[in-house]
Order: sequence, then structure tokens, then C-alpha cells
Amino acid sequence: MAYIVLPEEDKLPGIRGLMAFRPETSRPLNALAEVLLRENNNALSQGEREMIAAYVSYLNDCLFCQSVHGAAAECYLEDDGSLISQMKQDFWKAPISDKMKALLSIAGSVQKGGKNVSAEQINTAKEAGAEDIEIHDTVLIAAAFCMFNRYVDGLGTWAPVGHEKYVSSGIRIRDEGYAGFDPLGSLRK
Amino acid sequence: MAYIVLPEEDKLPGIRGLMAFRPETSRPLNALAEVLLRENNNALSQGEREMIAAYVSYLNDCLFCQSVHGAAAECYLEDDGSLISQMKQDFWKAPISDKMKALLSIAGSVQKGGKNVSAEQINTAKEAGAEDIEIHDTVLIAAAFCMFNRYVDGLGTWAPVGHEKYVSSGIRIRDEGYAGFDPLGSLRK
Repeated sequence: MAYIVLPEEDKLPGIRGLMAFRPETSRPLNALAEVLLRENNNALSQGEREMIAAYVSYLNDCLFCQSVHGAAAECYLEDDGSLISQMKQDFWKAPISDKMKALLSIAGSVQKGGKNVSAEQINTAKEAGAEDIEIHDTVLIAAAFCMFNRYVDGLGTWAPVGHEKYVSSGIRIRDEGYAGFDPLGSLRK
Repeated sequence: MAYIVLPEEDKLPGIRGLMAFRPETSRPLNALAEVLLRENNNALSQGEREMIAAYVSYLNDCLFCQSVHGAAAECYLEDDGSLISQMKQDFWKAPISDKMKALLSIAGSVQKGGKNVSAEQINTAKEAGAEDIEIHDTVLIAAAFCMFNRYVDGLGTWAPVGHEKYVSSGIRIRDEGYAGFDPLGSLRK
């Protein structure tokens, strides 16, 4: 049980119960996720951006967020889960671009703390072809998931166990996005 | 110098240069700050909420954010800086309510990671009179500053040195807030 009383808690795991509890904060949070993870405004694909979100959530040991955003990445990248699993274990050896490896390395440093990012990491990313906006978005995605993960776990919410429980979330993110997300929507269907 | 090329960087320290670089993400970030720190929607005063923001930014060693939000807290609380300084050093001994001490303790745990918050800390806050929405907002403010601090430092932005450099930011936050913040506004005056 969460640390505070949430509406329909048994049906709304993770951030969904929190968003139903406080719609005033859920709106800017979803608007931020929409711009960072879903709008087509830079060279990083939606699947690559969800991969960064899943990686940071994995480092923060947040089951709900790493599962939801892992499922979204799998959905965009048409992955059966093996690529995301390999990326978490050792992204340097995963079949992803050198640019993505450099950006995941930056995201991992942001997870530890902003000052852990080094000029060398940034140079490596630029040499691999990363533009300023991609470096910006990588740092902000990683920072944002240091928020989302703490929000979800700091209030003691629950998360379904099992990869298959998150497949529908990945499809919903790909098809409907975050901006108009209604945490109570699924209960009305 | 920041890790990416920012507009008017020499005149726009900290998050201001980043917001000028990427207005699409600055809008939801400022909307979130407005709801969490400035709207009168729960029993925590604006000064108390800015204090939580300043405390977490202090723990994350983010000079820009701890200075700006410390200045805002001082402005609301009519503090000459001694209360905020005392709060950072040892909030248990500062002249603040038992409820605020319990909430700052929760914020400190969120800063380490969401799973560090304990049921005992939550119970202590509730016994001191904290309502669910205040506990929710404390956790989300603390989590949000784990994002803002990483964003500001992870991209290598600069920050003015000296308490007096931030007084005008505190007044601006109190009088104008975050929602309509224009990072380039001060350059047009």
C-alpha cells in the first residue's frame, strides 16, 4: 500500500494512482514526457528516447518505470525484449549505434548526479555525431527519470510483476502518447 | 562554459540559458514549478515549499538552484538568510515546525533515492499534522529538484557566486512566479 490514500489504488499502479490523486501536477508531468519522449523534434527516435528512460529507471531500480518505458521502447523498436535486456546489462556490447552508447553513458552519469558528467563523455558523443539538442534531451530525459522514479517509489506505490503485464502500456504510449493521458481512463472502458 | 552552445550564455546562468535553448521543455518545467511551489493549494506555505526545494538543491550541491530557491524562501519568510543557512546545516535544530522537520527528513531521503523513504518517516510526519497532499507535494518537490539540479549541472552551466546576486531572483519568483517565465525577458529591459 502507498504511503498516502490514492483513488482506486488496487487498479492504478505506479504513477497512475499518483496522477489520479493530483491532476494539477500530472498535467505538466505528462506534458514534459510528451515533448521529451514522443514529439518528433530531433534526430533521436522515440524508441531511442524511451530506451534512455528505461535505462535510467533500471539504474534507479524503479520496477514500474523501467517496465513501462522498456515496453514502450520495445514497441517502437519492434524488440521482443532481448535488446532492452541486453542494453541494461551492458549497453557497450548491445547492437546499438556508437552515438546511443555515448548518450547512454552520459545518462548513466546524470543518474549518479549532474556533476558526474564529464567533458570527455560529451566530446565522445559529439564525435559519434550527437547534436547539441540530442545531448540536451538526453540529460533532461535522464534527469526527469530521476524525478519520476523517486516520485513513484518515494510514495511507496506498487507495481505489477511480469514483463507481459506492461505490453499494453507500451502500445498505449506509442499510439496515444502522454499529453492527454487520463489515469482513470482504463477504469471506464 | 556549458557543454552545449546556449543563447546569450554569459547573461543567462543556470537553468535560464537551458530554457532559452529549448522553450518546448521549459514550458512544462515552469508549469510544474508553478503548481508545486507557488499555487496556494495546500497547507504548506510558499516559503516552506521553497525551503524544501533549497534543501534538496543544497544536498545535491547545485549552487544555482540552492541559491535561487533559498532566495525565494528568504523573500517569502522575510528571512535575512540566517534561517535558510541554519536549516541547511541542521534543520532539526532550526526554529521551524515539527511538521516541517518531518517533511525535510522525507525530502532528504527522496534525494538519496525513492526507496529510502520509510514508513516511520511518513508516520512521524502524519503525527506532526501533515496531510496526504503535503506529503505528496514534499516528495514531488524533492524529486523534481533531483531533476532540476541534474539538468543544470549535467549540462555544465555556470552560476553567479555570492548570496546578493540572487536576491532579485527571489523577489521575481514571489511577485511574478514561474508560469510565464521568459528566460530572455531580463535582457530586453
